[in-house]
Amino acid sequence: MIIVDTIQQLRSTLEPYRKQGQRVALVPTMGFLHEGHLSLVDEAKARAEIVVMSIFVNPTQFGPGEDFESYPRDLEKDQAQAMQRGVSILFAPSAKEMYPAQSLTTVSVSEVTDRLCGASRPGHFDGVATVVTKLFNIVQPDFACFGMKDAQQLAVIQRFVQDLNMSVEIIPCPIVREADGLALSSRNVYLNMEERSQAVVLNEALTLAEQALQTATNGEAVKEQVRSLIETKPLAKIDYVELLTYPSLEPIEQLETAMDCIVALAVRFGKTRLIDNRMITIKRGERHVSDNDER
Amino acid sequence: MIIVDTIQQLRSTLEPYRKQGQRVALVPTMGFLHEGHLSLVDEAKARAEIVVMSIFVNPTQFGPGEDFESYPRDLEKDQAQAMQRGVSILFAPSAKEMYPAQSLTTVSVSEVTDRLCGASRPGHFDGVATVVTKLFNIVQPDFACFGMKDAQQLAVIQRFVQDLNMSVEIIPCPIVREADGLALSSRNVYLNMEERSQAVVLNEALTLAEQALQTATNGEAVKEQVRSLIETKPLAKIDYVELLTYPSLEPIEQLETAMDCIVALAVRFGKTRLIDNRMITIKRGERHVSDNDER
Repeated sequence: MIIVDTIQQLRSTLEPYRKQGQRVALVPTMGFLHEGHLSLVDEAKARAEIVVMSIFVNPTQFGPGEDFESYPRDLEKDQAQAMQRGVSILFAPSAKEMYPAQSLTTVSVSEVTDRLCGASRPGHFDGVATVVTKLFNIVQPDFACFGMKDAQQLAVIQRFVQDLNMSVEIIPCPIVREADGLALSSRNVYLNMEERSQAVVLNEALTLAEQALQTATNGEAVKEQVRSLIETKPLAKIDYVELLTYPSLEPIEQLETAMDCIVALAVRFGKTRLIDNRMITIKRGERHVSDNDER
Repeated sequence: MIIVDTIQQLRSTLEPYRKQGQRVALVPTMGFLHEGHLSLVDEAKARAEIVVMSIFVNPTQFGPGEDFESYPRDLEKDQAQAMQRGVSILFAPSAKEMYPAQSLTTVSVSEVTDRLCGASRPGHFDGVATVVTKLFNIVQPDFACFGMKDAQQLAVIQRFVQDLNMSVEIIPCPIVREADGLALSSRNVYLNMEERSQAVVLNEALTLAEQALQTATNGEAVKEQVRSLIETKPLAKIDYVELLTYPSLEPIEQLETAMDCIVALAVRFGKTRLIDNRMITIKRGERHVSDNDER
């Protein structure tokens, strides 16, 4: 595995492979790798000869008072894990390398960013869209793999890739969970034992929603059931419980057959804000869980 | 010359040339070609084996009440001129091809867009930055040629290419003028005989500014001289006369040696709004006109 920290090094490392016609897949991460990230490497390896992983805690997607400073970092361990999993090139630039001068350009996606995390984290998705555009321009990958746990991020990226005619193919990858159902997240290390134990309610709430949507005619009632279950946990503070269309993320007036929808949650446990979701295609009288969840 | 009107056709036409390692230069235009556009083709041919010209009157860069509907178009004549000048591929998409569904993504550049045409045409440069980003992603050119008459557009493009780490090299090309000094513009066809005759004052005003800046210590006084000269023409209505740094387009507190600045004008003659500019590097006791103007 080649480790580079400048854009110029990355480009010159990639150039000979590209000239040989080898395909490149990108796995963008903020580091502190877990099995969720590493499963993206597997997806990348299945599609391309060269797998580039980026590790960059992007300051522009954190708001004031968010956890940019304290976001967990462990580059040494990340390097070992990336190498072992088969990453070809690890790109770990500094903030100064990514934003050398005052940067004046923003890539923004409207509407899809109005709800869910976009509502409570203003500017977050501008930061995401801009840094991912930069990474795509730097790496020029044929494929880029993103986890479905960040479902709104995925919808935003799919949208700007289409709107701006980027030639990269976006590969959505299933959520990876702990044995008890908690979705893997770098932020799980923030949880104390009690919070960690109560956080399993997120996955339980999604399963409840999935079952309720089999027979439900009213989305609001399903959301209310989900809220009630989460509120049985005394440390849980709900940020949102939403049922929306996917990938357009619009409110659902009426549940209809063959509708692709997402149940999405954001819940705080102490100082830690966790998100989770499940994508569900509504069938008449039955329901089909799509492959964003590999349990 | 190959003429294509879909993105897919363009990509598949370019692919074999790119695989052979041939370089691609893009000349983005809104058509109704004149010698200014065709001089960009010459610059493109000097750098790349394949010259792609795009002709697209981009609706998103026109504001309400602007001249999108009446903007002059003559695709047949454009095709003949492009072919004669040596364009390899002419890409003339429809608005539906470029914006197939509701497009939610915008590329925005701040600060550089606050002044000059950005102040009087809100949203214009978002439209420009977004469509040029799309064209760059569609064509993936090694070079892209832009005229310096649209100096602020050029500054905006240079800025987002740098900020977003795009790999295209931007080639700024000199302003081309009529024998009497009027800068070529597709909008010149709007001028009646009297307006056309009075419009030469723009170039005269820039020459006055250039001379005044040799000895001036006060930029405001130079702008006042320029305004006075333009105001001798009864049909001229000044939109702006500005003296700014280039390419950052910031106000100049004090004229200093070796400062790169731009004198930029926008003036209405009847219903027609014309822009013109000259870039000047200030030398102590002398002045040096940079090569944006090939008179």
